[in-house]
Amino acid sequence: MPDIGKLLWPRSVAVVGASSDTDGLRGRILQIMKSHPFAGPIYPVSRSEAVVQGLNAFRSVDELPAPVDLAVLIIPAKFVPQELDRCGAAGIRAATILSSGFAEEPGGKGFALQEEVRAIAERHDMAVSGPNAEGFANTAAALCPTFSPVMEAGATPLLPPDGRARGQVAVISQSGGMGFAFFDHGRPKDLSFRYIVTTGNEACLETFDFVDYMLDEGKTDVFLLLLEDVKNLETFKRVAAKALRAGKPLIVGKLGQSEAGSRAVRSHTAAQAGAHADYHALFERYGVIEGRDIIEMTDIAQGFLAYGSRLPAGRRVGICTSSGGGGALAADACVAAGLDVPELDGETRAVIDVHLPSYGTSQNPVDVTAQAVHELGYAEFARLVAGSPAVDGVIVVVTGRYPRLLVGDREPLAKLARESGKPIFMWSYTQPAATCSELMNEAGYPLFTDVHHCARAMRLMADYRAARERAIRG
Amino acid sequence: MPDIGKLLWPRSVAVVGASSDTDGLRGRILQIMKSHPFAGPIYPVSRSEAVVQGLNAFRSVDELPAPVDLAVLIIPAKFVPQELDRCGAAGIRAATILSSGFAEEPGGKGFALQEEVRAIAERHDMAVSGPNAEGFANTAAALCPTFSPVMEAGATPLLPPDGRARGQVAVISQSGGMGFAFFDHGRPKDLSFRYIVTTGNEACLETFDFVDYMLDEGKTDVFLLLLEDVKNLETFKRVAAKALRAGKPLIVGKLGQSEAGSRAVRSHTAAQAGAHADYHALFERYGVIEGRDIIEMTDIAQGFLAYGSRLPAGRRVGICTSSGGGGALAADACVAAGLDVPELDGETRAVIDVHLPSYGTSQNPVDVTAQAVHELGYAEFARLVAGSPAVDGVIVVVTGRYPRLLVGDREPLAKLARESGKPIFMWSYTQPAATCSELMNEAGYPLFTDVHHCARAMRLMADYRAARERAIRG
Repeated sequence: MPDIGKLLWPRSVAVVGASSDTDGLRGRILQIMKSHPFAGPIYPVSRSEAVVQGLNAFRSVDELPAPVDLAVLIIPAKFVPQELDRCGAAGIRAATILSSGFAEEPGGKGFALQEEVRAIAERHDMAVSGPNAEGFANTAAALCPTFSPVMEAGATPLLPPDGRARGQVAVISQSGGMGFAFFDHGRPKDLSFRYIVTTGNEACLETFDFVDYMLDEGKTDVFLLLLEDVKNLETFKRVAAKALRAGKPLIVGKLGQSEAGSRAVRSHTAAQAGAHADYHALFERYGVIEGRDIIEMTDIAQGFLAYGSRLPAGRRVGICTSSGGGGALAADACVAAGLDVPELDGETRAVIDVHLPSYGTSQNPVDVTAQAVHELGYAEFARLVAGSPAVDGVIVVVTGRYPRLLVGDREPLAKLARESGKPIFMWSYTQPAATCSELMNEAGYPLFTDVHHCARAMRLMADYRAARERAIRG
Repeated sequence: MPDIGKLLWPRSVAVVGASSDTDGLRGRILQIMKSHPFAGPIYPVSRSEAVVQGLNAFRSVDELPAPVDLAVLIIPAKFVPQELDRCGAAGIRAATILSSGFAEEPGGKGFALQEEVRAIAERHDMAVSGPNAEGFANTAAALCPTFSPVMEAGATPLLPPDGRARGQVAVISQSGGMGFAFFDHGRPKDLSFRYIVTTGNEACLETFDFVDYMLDEGKTDVFLLLLEDVKNLETFKRVAAKALRAGKPLIVGKLGQSEAGSRAVRSHTAAQAGAHADYHALFERYGVIEGRDIIEMTDIAQGFLAYGSRLPAGRRVGICTSSGGGGALAADACVAAGLDVPELDGETRAVIDVHLPSYGTSQNPVDVTAQAVHELGYAEFARLVAGSPAVDGVIVVVTGRYPRLLVGDREPLAKLARESGKPIFMWSYTQPAATCSELMNEAGYPLFTDVHHCARAMRLMADYRAARERAIRG
């Protein structure tokens, strides 16, 4: 197995096909790379330009002034094999190939090119991602060899401020657009992305090779994987079992579940999607979590990051709300997600009832009413509900648009998040203000705006815990 | 039937129980009302304060200096009947009761109070909304008698700029929190809300009385209804049939579908949720569209507003994408929503193929590739796909985060939206930038970020068209 470390953590990078034209993809890659403070040298390789975007360019990889770990290839498909070979000969041990026109192309010529790429990578023992990929991002190294506009340095730093993230996520996706879309949706929620790797046709390295590397590295807590197929069943089984033992959830979106979707992935990356029922059974056996789309998967990751070590022991949920309608909606969503919403035990109810006006209720959903929540705050009610032996987790229905109430409750909320043995999820039925999102992130709560994602997250976390316990018991 | 016009379009309003304390609900109502430029006089009625928030207050509704149309009641439940009676005697013909502690309260005392309210309203022929409601908003009148923080005048005006909205939505919800949450989610998408009415326990006027009034008024294009129960089956049937004939879709969220949800609505508004299967059958019979949550319902409304007169003639969808993975995800979501994603006809494919590189495909999903979309733009490909006799509508997969491409395509996009006989939906797999949302709104496209909502919207629009055609044929 070639060294994936050379690919993801290069000390120096050559961009083969780099261009000054930042309207085109070949120019954009270098522009995006340069917009981040990657510590190592970046060498443009160009046959036509001597200086590219202010950097001295080299006519070929064998003319580079110093050893290079990674080559980024964005040249026409037909030139890729010879260039990759040249890279290997020059001692470059890793490449990411962004060019399209390989096995995904009808005909067979592209397939042959891809076979050549595979053979050359093997011969030089190179770690090769792609072809037909969109590159990757390593946020800790500030390295973004990709043309994805999502990775342009902008108002949002690559990583959230210290203390706000609960752990790290890695994305591995065959699709470039979808892969970086996870970052686009998750970063505003203060998720900390360690890697986004796009793998395209997976001629050499495949998704689970990357997962394997990252598990060994030990810095990734949750994986978001967007698969079009599983290239090697044995690798999948070995790595999925290893992830389950390590308690690092694999949240998978499998494209090509329908006939039309299969057609799409075949044309996209030459993937054979296969029957989804088979995949579903396989995923279930290995505790792999199935998500339905990018936003839902990102939300599920948020739940795992917040409570990786305090997963719900079962599917029984307590709902705590100051909006009666919100409680009803959450209850219906929980039941639809396969959770139970049992009535609370009498002892807990008696303690809660002391604080409620006559038109509130402690049954479950616990409708504490706007009046009582103004007096006592959300945290205290959530604490009381979480204390009930009848529930394995709590969903708190809040309105995050006007965070005055939550800000006043900041300390008790933070204390509860630290001390609760059961996971507590927050659903805001309005769009949360920035202050509210920050407060929740700092306290350590996952904050959802989609009630179904919130309910599904708890359900899947309970399922994952059960799958893991089964696996450990053997 | 009392005159709902007096309630929703009063020339003058008395706030009974108004207070200077803007930390409390009684003070907040007046504060929020005053923050909007309602044209008529607002009279605070207070026993303890002579001046409330800068307005002269009156000790009782029978001391008001001029005739008043609407009374807003926010006083303890036990005082509501006598105060409502006093309003009726003073010639006030409408009231919204925000006080809680009526039939939703266990015991029976609150139930008796509610019966009194009903009898008094009937005696005076008053249009009464509530009790246990959160008031309402009439945006055209700039009238917001509610304590919902969502309706505080802020950075976002009550209505979108002229030309950006495609029609008007009315929300009617038993739950106040949920009712105003529709506005909170929909307003950033430039939906134009005509009314948000919260009805609470519906002691007198019920949801479908309001729908009936609004249908007669003829200014509302789409209804978003959040029901806990249907109070009067005959009213429902009559009004739902009338709405269907008029082509004004009723998008309903029915709370209390599960046992836990039923428990919640019983405690919330004393509603008897009933068996959901019965409701489902009833809704289907009258072409009533069922939504799953606030955000999804808002998204579905967006679809109807854009294409109310060009609903899809069937369930066959063409998908047009520059991201292969995005196309596959959209195809799977469409099939999950019950749409068909057929291969396009040969003639259409031949025309599209001319523009595609070898690794693109015209099959469906039509993967036009990033390269071709840069050259030709989204609009031209969407136009070609919409022209295929194999499809009834089109979903275009875009990335709205960096709108450069879309901005360059502005004119053709606007032309296509105007001229296309088939609905064209936009799904952005990244969070759209403000420029992109504005552009899409101005052109007239519904823009979705949740792919499942996008697919469900088209499916439900096709179903609605079919239901309406069945109804018209008789």
